[in-house]
Amino acid sequence: MKKMKIISGGVCAPKGFKAGGIRCAIKESAQQAAAQKKDLALIYSEKICNAAAMFTRNKVKAASVIVSQENINNGKLHAVIANSGNANACTGSAGMEAARRMTEAAACELSIDPKDVAVASTGVIGVPLPVEKIEKNIAALKASLRGDETGHADALEAIMTTDTRKKEIAVEIEIDGKCVRLGAMTKGSGMIHPDMATMLCFITTDAAVNAAALDDALRRAVKKSFNCLTVDGDTSTNDMVLIMANGEAGNEIIGDQRPGSGDDNFSVFCEALEYVCVELTKMIARDGEGATRLVTVTVDGAASEEAAWTLAKSVASSSLVKAACFGADANWGRVLCAMGYSGGAFAPEKTNVSFKSGKGVIEVCRNGMPVTFSEERAKEILLQEEIEILINLNEGKRRASVWGCDLTYDYVKINGDYRS
Amino acid sequence: MKKMKIISGGVCAPKGFKAGGIRCAIKESAQQAAAQKKDLALIYSEKICNAAAMFTRNKVKAASVIVSQENINNGKLHAVIANSGNANACTGSAGMEAARRMTEAAACELSIDPKDVAVASTGVIGVPLPVEKIEKNIAALKASLRGDETGHADALEAIMTTDTRKKEIAVEIEIDGKCVRLGAMTKGSGMIHPDMATMLCFITTDAAVNAAALDDALRRAVKKSFNCLTVDGDTSTNDMVLIMANGEAGNEIIGDQRPGSGDDNFSVFCEALEYVCVELTKMIARDGEGATRLVTVTVDGAASEEAAWTLAKSVASSSLVKAACFGADANWGRVLCAMGYSGGAFAPEKTNVSFKSGKGVIEVCRNGMPVTFSEERAKEILLQEEIEILINLNEGKRRASVWGCDLTYDYVKINGDYRS
Repeated sequence: MKKMKIISGGVCAPKGFKAGGIRCAIKESAQQAAAQKKDLALIYSEKICNAAAMFTRNKVKAASVIVSQENINNGKLHAVIANSGNANACTGSAGMEAARRMTEAAACELSIDPKDVAVASTGVIGVPLPVEKIEKNIAALKASLRGDETGHADALEAIMTTDTRKKEIAVEIEIDGKCVRLGAMTKGSGMIHPDMATMLCFITTDAAVNAAALDDALRRAVKKSFNCLTVDGDTSTNDMVLIMANGEAGNEIIGDQRPGSGDDNFSVFCEALEYVCVELTKMIARDGEGATRLVTVTVDGAASEEAAWTLAKSVASSSLVKAACFGADANWGRVLCAMGYSGGAFAPEKTNVSFKSGKGVIEVCRNGMPVTFSEERAKEILLQEEIEILINLNEGKRRASVWGCDLTYDYVKINGDYRS
Repeated sequence: MKKMKIISGGVCAPKGFKAGGIRCAIKESAQQAAAQKKDLALIYSEKICNAAAMFTRNKVKAASVIVSQENINNGKLHAVIANSGNANACTGSAGMEAARRMTEAAACELSIDPKDVAVASTGVIGVPLPVEKIEKNIAALKASLRGDETGHADALEAIMTTDTRKKEIAVEIEIDGKCVRLGAMTKGSGMIHPDMATMLCFITTDAAVNAAALDDALRRAVKKSFNCLTVDGDTSTNDMVLIMANGEAGNEIIGDQRPGSGDDNFSVFCEALEYVCVELTKMIARDGEGATRLVTVTVDGAASEEAAWTLAKSVASSSLVKAACFGADANWGRVLCAMGYSGGAFAPEKTNVSFKSGKGVIEVCRNGMPVTFSEERAKEILLQEEIEILINLNEGKRRASVWGCDLTYDYVKINGDYRS
């Protein structure tokens, strides 16, 4: 993309947005207390925003998901309040009440309508949310709001759970000669799978975009990014990705025209949003629980994008492929095997497989059969932190990439006793 | 079942069957050489058998699967030859040739028709099978045939790969006043998932059963057993379960009548076969790669058996649930979550969850919400080697059980570098 610039500031980079985060000890574990980790975040736009969101498709939905779905129905948002340490899922009517009280507390403090507040939660399932702690600290939360990197960093810390890396990005593009910015933060390292599992992602932009176009752009971007992500195949009760556009950049409102009918600005915006989402997706994959490698599986030469995606997803999700990646083992038989049970269309006898990384590329399978290759060279390539499994079906011109990670001892360790 | 007796002898328990196994160094790893592990097995009936089999549904099929599918087409088998150490999958036309040569070598040595020989392989994918080693040792293989437990034990050792336990069973029932026996061996501890992944299972019986009834009985039994098994969600290129019935017991041929039309003998036979398959299924789950616990997930109170199976399978397959089982963590939120993304029908707000083992039972979730319970007591229950996750949907009267295991450090270790 021409003229896109990576900038700092995260969700506070676009004009008119503030963010903040504080600790209110929602989950009182010794570990968290010692770390004094923040656990309550707020993102706020001075001007009300057009907004769009996508939510988990898990049948078991957290109270925060249900309340946010209701509140975003009219395409407007003013603020997002989010907590870590408790998912507020499987908590019944008390949980619904708690989620509503979170939006009301934030709205009251900010003098806005609670219907314009989204709420998000992440953490352990099935434990009542101590909402009174949030209410007691709501003034401090508002006081933490900053329009700079501090505010962004505090909010980001407050939504993290088992994340080991901060996952954020901001970019600047030009639309109508105006400087337009997008900023985003995300959390998530386990329970990640297409359909956006235990992932929260908040995106801000000062672009002027109408609600329908914003929704359209978000769906396109998520399809190419978060829905091409798998860490452990589990999808969670709490996921959401949400975008707020306050129009402060002063460009002509995007969305009166659609792509094809000549709205280049929409395309430019979509491209930037997809870039932001893909970068965050890779950050999540790289930060998969216990992961040591980012694994990109690309299926090329497919008859349809759908088939390419199905096959790539199956390979990236296979426990055996993931364990082989951990061991830097060029076990391409497991790759073909995972394709074989995916349900995706391909002809094994036309399929080629290569492994690639910064150290080079090595073909290991051609026409579904072994190629003589140097195990030593393959190991060298696979020992890198970012590796690619390249599959060519030799059937058509479609392609898809799915991002995942390896399966390690630490994944088991982290998830063997998460609640304690 | 009345009058069913567990006996010894495995596949050699039924009259007229012999088995044997030798080492011919198919995979020349230092480890295997040191262990002097047998890797070539033969099972043989003096009298030709009615036979039935089920094969992997993976699109990538090993040569042995394709050849055996052809050979069993007429419902007859005389012998099975099987090797470990090499899957003979993704090996192209040379692989097909190798699989055929295995059946021919066995047939020639036994003076039977190669079309009446099934062939099975298990091991690494994508490496040419050194069939000449098998041919060179075929006389020794025949010489190893015994009609007693020695023969059975040798054959069983020869099909094992990462298995740490011997998985075998034999039972005796009475049909028409005749003593009828069924014997079986199986291998498999990784790549196990409904649809029978990397699993070989050979069942012998001296019952007289026609081929159609045998096929019917096998399908019923597999549906209730091996297809309710999940170790890591991967299904392999090589699986087969095969039954041979030589009629030596002298009962009236089962299968002229069907259940409902009064063929009680068919029902008795089916019940025994299902018992054999379920016991082997549990043995495989217990021996899942790196597993420390057998995990049975039972969904009861479902509107349909299909829904119960879908939900139970999703729970038993969830990496997060499996890791929690390893950590003896009563994390029922993950159970509900895995049900939520399974696609199976249920109402979260009507769902109860309990954990059970030899140490007792503890309810942790009622109507989709937390129950106050003693974490200490839950830990005590979950620390057992055999645990059950009991789910009641309170919607109907159908139920299904799925067997799986926990996800451990050793799973990652075993699969991180399987090929070396």
